[in-house]
Amino acid sequence: MPGSVQSIERGAAILRLLARSPGQLGIGEIAGSLGLARSTAHGLVRTLQRVGFVEQDRVTSKYQLGAALLHLGTSYLDVNELRSRAINWADALAARSGEAVRIGTVLDGQVLVVHHVFRPDDTLQTLDVGSLLPMHATALGKVLLAYDSGAAAAVRGGDLQARTRRTITTPRALTRALTRTREVGWVTEVEEMTVGEAGIAAPIRGYGGLVVGAMGISGAVERICDSRGQPNSALVTYVRDAARAVSRDLGASRY
Amino acid sequence: MPGSVQSIERGAAILRLLARSPGQLGIGEIAGSLGLARSTAHGLVRTLQRVGFVEQDRVTSKYQLGAALLHLGTSYLDVNELRSRAINWADALAARSGEAVRIGTVLDGQVLVVHHVFRPDDTLQTLDVGSLLPMHATALGKVLLAYDSGAAAAVRGGDLQARTRRTITTPRALTRALTRTREVGWVTEVEEMTVGEAGIAAPIRGYGGLVVGAMGISGAVERICDSRGQPNSALVTYVRDAARAVSRDLGASRY
Repeated sequence: MPGSVQSIERGAAILRLLARSPGQLGIGEIAGSLGLARSTAHGLVRTLQRVGFVEQDRVTSKYQLGAALLHLGTSYLDVNELRSRAINWADALAARSGEAVRIGTVLDGQVLVVHHVFRPDDTLQTLDVGSLLPMHATALGKVLLAYDSGAAAAVRGGDLQARTRRTITTPRALTRALTRTREVGWVTEVEEMTVGEAGIAAPIRGYGGLVVGAMGISGAVERICDSRGQPNSALVTYVRDAARAVSRDLGASRY
Repeated sequence: MPGSVQSIERGAAILRLLARSPGQLGIGEIAGSLGLARSTAHGLVRTLQRVGFVEQDRVTSKYQLGAALLHLGTSYLDVNELRSRAINWADALAARSGEAVRIGTVLDGQVLVVHHVFRPDDTLQTLDVGSLLPMHATALGKVLLAYDSGAAAAVRGGDLQARTRRTITTPRALTRALTRTREVGWVTEVEEMTVGEAGIAAPIRGYGGLVVGAMGISGAVERICDSRGQPNSALVTYVRDAARAVSRDLGASRY
């Protein structure tokens, strides 16, 4: 690729490989997975270790991700304008709706959660920031796909894995859902990711009207939907109003 | 440096530079800060952008950290054994002490917060995970320095910046504090970082007894300390017991 720096691309591939692995990896496994000579992999890993992106376990001598990445990751959140503009609106949406609020953006064909406000009650909840969610099975993901034809084509051509018996699993059904999302400007997800859970999401637009993220609520299906499985219209309004308010703050003047 | 890959080191330096900057940076600023030719900086930044570590603002054309780092940073937390072994003990310590609990490790001469349990009340608190704290002005930092002579020498030789009028600012006072920490196996910090706040911390040891992190509580000085400024001995015991329990789980058999 012209102008690209090969060792940085290989270094990034090693980090992605370690992020995908449930445990630590040895040099042989890293070299094998990426089709590199062992000595090449070793030089790359040693340098990644020196800059704090990789750590070597003293006992096993195997490698895992390093602490410097955590600080860079949270620094990303600090400079992320989508998130900083959305924080107050997300808190308000959680308070109005009584549900958990998440904001997502596209990363590598998945939804990256960049902000998460817990449902305002005392139950134990796990922070989803930094998690990746499947696009076709979540309200956030369907919104993002509806306004990103490149990502939509890639997801449609890939494996639409069933999470429940209600997950959209055919390219045709996905296309229909995305068209409908663009028509109405919001989308719902009813037990498509997790049985008993539902969600509603709307697009966040940035400068020039471009969709830069999605904002939505998720929670128990009996709270999000009525007895016929239709989303509560007050909740839909809350979500759309909040996403529009963030869009306005980001400079999307029409919304 | 033998065996090092220069472009990875330069790429990491660009990422650290962006993490330190309050806003976005242009190519000229990046090249200037790192002493690189503009074309070299451009090739590196373009590659970092391609792998998702850097994003370019469409409006300003300037650069900031990218979303892929957020996912790598939280993936680091998933594989971090110190954190995974400590989560339950940290929750229990917060419940017993009624205070916020943090776990830290050393990164670039500072304390990197890898886990944070909020004080168990309804007040608004900000998640510190991924933040960097000064070592000489925090209980977590003093514990980590007490058992890391390299880091202690670097911090002693650097700028011991005063955060309050009680911060340790001389190498001699710091040496004395660290010796005392090793003697008793825990340390307190009373209004050395923030007026009105105090903390207590103890070391977490891993395999072979090596100190791999620190665990501590922090909160209002009137809850942590008695009227003479001495830390509440029950709280000290809770912190030490919790740190010892984590150490045992990490394989530090003597503790």
